[in-house]
Amino acid sequence: MPHLIIQYSESLGERVNMTEFCAVMSKVMQQTGQFPLAGIRVRAHPMPHSSIADEHPENAFVDIILRIGEGRSDAQKATAGSALMEGAKSAFAAQLAHPHFALSLEIIEISKSFSWKTNSIHPRLKN
Amino acid sequence: MPHLIIQYSESLGERVNMTEFCAVMSKVMQQTGQFPLAGIRVRAHPMPHSSIADEHPENAFVDIILRIGEGRSDAQKATAGSALMEGAKSAFAAQLAHPHFALSLEIIEISKSFSWKTNSIHPRLKN
Amino acid sequence: MPHLIIQYSESLGERVNMTEFCAVMSKVMQQTGQFPLAGIRVRAHPMPHSSIADEHPENAFVDIILRIGEGRSDAQKATAGSALMEGAKSAFAAQLAHPHFALSLEIIEISKSFSWKTNSIHPRLKN
Repeated sequence: MPHLIIQYSESLGERVNMTEFCAVMSKVMQQTGQFPLAGIRVRAHPMPHSSIADEHPENAFVDIILRIGEGRSDAQKATAGSALMEGAKSAFAAQLAHPHFALSLEIIEISKSFSWKTNSIHPRLKN
Repeated sequence: MPHLIIQYSESLGERVNMTEFCAVMSKVMQQTGQFPLAGIRVRAHPMPHSSIADEHPENAFVDIILRIGEGRSDAQKATAGSALMEGAKSAFAAQLAHPHFALSLEIIEISKSFSWKTNSIHPRLKN
Repeated sequence: MPHLIIQYSESLGERVNMTEFCAVMSKVMQQTGQFPLAGIRVRAHPMPHSSIADEHPENAFVDIILRIGEGRSDAQKATAGSALMEGAKSAFAAQLAHPHFALSLEIIEISKSFSWKTNSIHPRLKN
């Protein structure tokens, strides 16, 4: 089930390997023990147009949304969110060292009653 | 009002006509009888970076969010969601036949109090 | 904190400067007095595939989501939403004059308990 969706300033893609960042975030999710591997879908996409804060040309952002199924405790969500945030801070340490970077993360729950899914990866990874 | 937003693995775009898939989803929405044609906005955009499950190179996903106005009954939402899911399963039957594909759909309601809209298509389609 | 996320029909990007539209939306947000400059992250990204209403080739849409921290009053949110909608209507007046355009905006709150952020721009703009 879990979806991790990363939006980022297009210019950042020239300096950071975003596919690698997706893999890092997946690893963090796996290490929480809350998310079966077969359900993890991390993805990132650049924003070609933006206006960030005072529009300094160095300004950039990364905004992450984790969408998960209902049912985890508040403590579990806090643990997952903190772990992901620490992973992201490490990945963007170079950016955070300069006064031009904004990083954010939110966890949103997916309604059990109004969601549908089918996943042909699950049976393979259970083998 | 209704928005259908499709995120998909970029690699999938080489094998599936995503514009056509948008048209298929629109047809399903129209057939539910719940959504006036002039308000339907289906769109799809690729994710250039991702880490899906065990990162098998064949892994791919399609994730769909339907955003609709408040006011429909639970039964109506279940009917619309099931119909869209069936449409998507048919469109991606070739992918679901292999153990590398994850498909998901969620319905989210748009707050009546905190949304605004103007649509110059409506008057034309009422003629 | 505030995130303004704009999805638009790819074809619209040929006729409208979307980076400039991001700047216009940021100005409107600043003028509400509700949002500190350092936190403003406006961005826009095109939808390469879509099916809008009756699929008239001129059909296009702009869909805007404002994500803000919890805590503002309903009146504040109504004021911010109305101001942004007016700004967007002005920016797309040419499109709204023809029967092929749909514009929408929603305000969504970010959960205080399940969001995390770090922003190295804030200290610089406080100087």
